[in-house]
Amino acid sequence: MPNVSKRGENIAASPIRKLVPFADEAKRKGKHIYHLNIGQPDILTPPSAIKAVQEADMQVLAYSHSAGFESYRRKLVGYYEKFGVTIDHNDLIITTGASEAILFGMMSCLDSGDEVIVPEPFYANYNGFSTAGGIVVKPITARIENDFALPPIADFEKCITSKTKAILICNPSNPTGYLYSKEELLALKEIALKHNLFLFADEVYREFCYDGKEYTSILTIDGLEDHVVVFDSISKRFSACGARIGMIVSKNKSVISTAMKFAQARLSPPTLAQILGEATLDVPQSYLDKSITEYNERRELLIARLQEMDHVVCPKPTGAFYAFAKLPIDNADRFCRWLLEEFEYNGASVMLAPGTGFYYSKGLGQQEVRMAYVLNKNDLNKAMDCLQEALKVYPGRTVDAIKQSLNS
Amino acid sequence: MPNVSKRGENIAASPIRKLVPFADEAKRKGKHIYHLNIGQPDILTPPSAIKAVQEADMQVLAYSHSAGFESYRRKLVGYYEKFGVTIDHNDLIITTGASEAILFGMMSCLDSGDEVIVPEPFYANYNGFSTAGGIVVKPITARIENDFALPPIADFEKCITSKTKAILICNPSNPTGYLYSKEELLALKEIALKHNLFLFADEVYREFCYDGKEYTSILTIDGLEDHVVVFDSISKRFSACGARIGMIVSKNKSVISTAMKFAQARLSPPTLAQILGEATLDVPQSYLDKSITEYNERRELLIARLQEMDHVVCPKPTGAFYAFAKLPIDNADRFCRWLLEEFEYNGASVMLAPGTGFYYSKGLGQQEVRMAYVLNKNDLNKAMDCLQEALKVYPGRTVDAIKQSLNS
Repeated sequence: MPNVSKRGENIAASPIRKLVPFADEAKRKGKHIYHLNIGQPDILTPPSAIKAVQEADMQVLAYSHSAGFESYRRKLVGYYEKFGVTIDHNDLIITTGASEAILFGMMSCLDSGDEVIVPEPFYANYNGFSTAGGIVVKPITARIENDFALPPIADFEKCITSKTKAILICNPSNPTGYLYSKEELLALKEIALKHNLFLFADEVYREFCYDGKEYTSILTIDGLEDHVVVFDSISKRFSACGARIGMIVSKNKSVISTAMKFAQARLSPPTLAQILGEATLDVPQSYLDKSITEYNERRELLIARLQEMDHVVCPKPTGAFYAFAKLPIDNADRFCRWLLEEFEYNGASVMLAPGTGFYYSKGLGQQEVRMAYVLNKNDLNKAMDCLQEALKVYPGRTVDAIKQSLNS
Repeated sequence: MPNVSKRGENIAASPIRKLVPFADEAKRKGKHIYHLNIGQPDILTPPSAIKAVQEADMQVLAYSHSAGFESYRRKLVGYYEKFGVTIDHNDLIITTGASEAILFGMMSCLDSGDEVIVPEPFYANYNGFSTAGGIVVKPITARIENDFALPPIADFEKCITSKTKAILICNPSNPTGYLYSKEELLALKEIALKHNLFLFADEVYREFCYDGKEYTSILTIDGLEDHVVVFDSISKRFSACGARIGMIVSKNKSVISTAMKFAQARLSPPTLAQILGEATLDVPQSYLDKSITEYNERRELLIARLQEMDHVVCPKPTGAFYAFAKLPIDNADRFCRWLLEEFEYNGASVMLAPGTGFYYSKGLGQQEVRMAYVLNKNDLNKAMDCLQEALKVYPGRTVDAIKQSLNS
């Protein structure tokens, strides 16, 4: 039998999805599972956007332009303008989710063996795309004690080699909920210019900022035009994860023309979903305002509940819809699986994403979990009831270990 | 400015799409363009499948399972059974077009530097996916004189090195329209077993076979269970290219579980299009019968028209909906661009795909073009009028060169 590839062996299973078989099994046994493991919002997709698909005249479901509908791209220029971003419709390509934007960005800018610096914990799927391309991830650890802020620039400097081609951030951050300040972006600018690096920014959560904090797109930073590549998606802002519509945006013409060759190889992004995507641009701001208010209330609820729990540490997120918490547990993977297999409270349990999967450095995240606050407040409360009870009875509960690590 | 990647530089622009700007310009000037360059059928997508999307209850357009809807995968088992293929619903993953199936297959089975043998001319986008993965394509030239049949096994033997991991065929073939016989598949079996190679088969055109020729899926060949990986798509059979729904199929559990990790990294295939895809399985056989009859008539028309043209050589295709012809021209790229920029007949011209883009070996295909017979017979006739007239006046017409090459 021929062997699968080494890169295929090396790619880690998604921490967000790898426990799905245990969740399925729990559900089969009649247990209700509250899904905080995955950023799949329960917010309604804008009905007007769904209607646009349902009412579209579709005789032949044809390929689109490889860069996506021109009409959609032209409209997106206006969308970005709202965030102070000035681009042309040729500065972007519609992709099959932000996933494909990340793939195109990495493939277009980095060769096998090249290095990309990524503050960790980071969105685990970056690993998949880098592994596919033979790209080496160099993690720099952001600390829970600092609310997962940008690590010191000195840490970046230490990490840079002749192979370093890019820095990748997620702003606001999945999985930590941290929103980078303009000062942090300017610090990144300095290092990108100094070492001639690409600056990749995954900005799919840009609408979701809290506590009056101001969002700055890296595309608005002057002097970085040739360095910045942004990955974007409608999945979260319009609760349309299943559409698989994203964008790659860059003012660097060589990057876009290179990404275009990868785009042509896969022919076109999904046509039905592009109709939906284009229609989301006519959705009134009130839809987003309502979503943001709802997420903010969930955030307050989640953090308040976590604060009630003994020995749980969780920085209050200022963006996105994730919280990254430290729990008094021995092993996050074991705990998350135990929650599904062994634990039950009022006929239910909660599914979390183990922190380990978001760190590249081995051994980190063992006591951490990511929670997506994508459930309504009633369900979120019940999910927190489960977690609170679980932490009282989990056999691997290790309060001492937590204390120790906080003091270290 | 940081430089784009070498792999990005090396990836060739799609021969099917790279002339699009010239076609767009011609259209702006009022010229009608008959598109024979791309396999975008004009056949109606099954209205019942479109209706399924339009009537679906979609409140939240959510991610699906990374392998695609389980209901759809279970139904697909029955579809494959019709072709004598026995699989389980866990032997396949729904992908974003066959494009993603090819990407997953290559990434799961080959490492950077590994070699895949591909009979040329071949579907040009294989290049894009192999280049992305640092995979080396080793072409074996199929000859127009032999109707582009499988090259002699001795040619494969000569090509195999310690780096060879796979052979990739397209059956029936895009771009040549050649349908491999069972004997040819058995010859491939022998060499795959002898050298422990994967056998990749792109079978997206399996429904389109003519002249009573029998189609054999490589999945039905005994003893190859661990070697075969099939790439599939609904794009052509259901005229749903824009859906972007495909499948990767293999009985090799390691291949599917590895592909699944890549599938999880990109979260899920498009949800709207999966609804359409699942509904296509309820489309009556009469839909396909009608399409096949129509394509067969177009094929007869196209070949008859080409035979009338002086010094044009074109094997009669027995599958898919492409013909690969040798024309009395100096340079296919120049000719195809000239057709768009300089030529006009009755206010129209024809767009063809230059043959060069389908060969990996430099210098081949200079006098060849691929034609997709995806237009109705009236338009196809007019497109052939254009070609016939163009060949009379094209400045780079080289009858002598054709004669010479046929004699060589």
